[in-house]
Amino acid sequence: MKISHIEHLGIAVPSIEEALPFFENVLGFKCYNIEEVADQKVKTAFLKVGEVKLELLEPTCPESTIATFIEKNGGRGGMHHLAFCVEDGVAEALAEVDAKGIRLIDKAPRKGAEGLNIAFLHPKSTMSVLTELCENPNK
Amino acid sequence: MKISHIEHLGIAVPSIEEALPFFENVLGFKCYNIEEVADQKVKTAFLKVGEVKLELLEPTCPESTIATFIEKNGGRGGMHHLAFCVEDGVAEALAEVDAKGIRLIDKAPRKGAEGLNIAFLHPKSTMSVLTELCENPNK
Repeated sequence: MKISHIEHLGIAVPSIEEALPFFENVLGFKCYNIEEVADQKVKTAFLKVGEVKLELLEPTCPESTIATFIEKNGGRGGMHHLAFCVEDGVAEALAEVDAKGIRLIDKAPRKGAEGLNIAFLHPKSTMSVLTELCENPNK
Repeated sequence: MKISHIEHLGIAVPSIEEALPFFENVLGFKCYNIEEVADQKVKTAFLKVGEVKLELLEPTCPESTIATFIEKNGGRGGMHHLAFCVEDGVAEALAEVDAKGIRLIDKAPRKGAEGLNIAFLHPKSTMSVLTELCENPNK
């Protein structure tokens, strides 16, 4: 597996509207896209820092895994997952890490925000860092 | 404040020795430096992913804030802090965010791993993401 860079860092927030002033007015980043990912029950906001995107994740319903994360964290958000861009495709990368005994959340790639092919590895196998592999199918 | 990129992502681990095989043999990164930061009671291991460093943090004693983080997290590690590289200096950046009402952990820059000047902002002001500002004084 060849990882080129961190594609994005997922940050859970109770409210994108309340979080954006910190990222935009204090840190100086610019939100360039807000979209809802119905499948994952989240609204996402994207900002860019160098080659890495920050993906703010707001739950759209109490059943969202992001809602659970925030609830377990005393009502606060925080860093949620780390996504790497794989150069040789997510399906190939999954097969490779599976063969190395890594536990998978997704056995096959699925669609994520911004049209990426994505798959999550299980934090029990990844030093408790929820790890996502992604590729841009249009590149 | 002008942030050029994510300087590093700090990841708490109970043991660097046990964590490295995942980052090196599964994800394919290379650890290029291990050093102890006595001041912060941690041993650190650095790997590079694109322009971003991953900083693995292992506590060197039970009083380390990393030991507390791991203890609160059920004995597991996880993403601990996010460090941004500021182009106009940490002291200037601190003055700027202080004027915007952001709570500071460090009122002035201090020395961190790899000789960087660093300062932490308080997670209560940063959407619960422990945020570090850094600059390389040799650049």
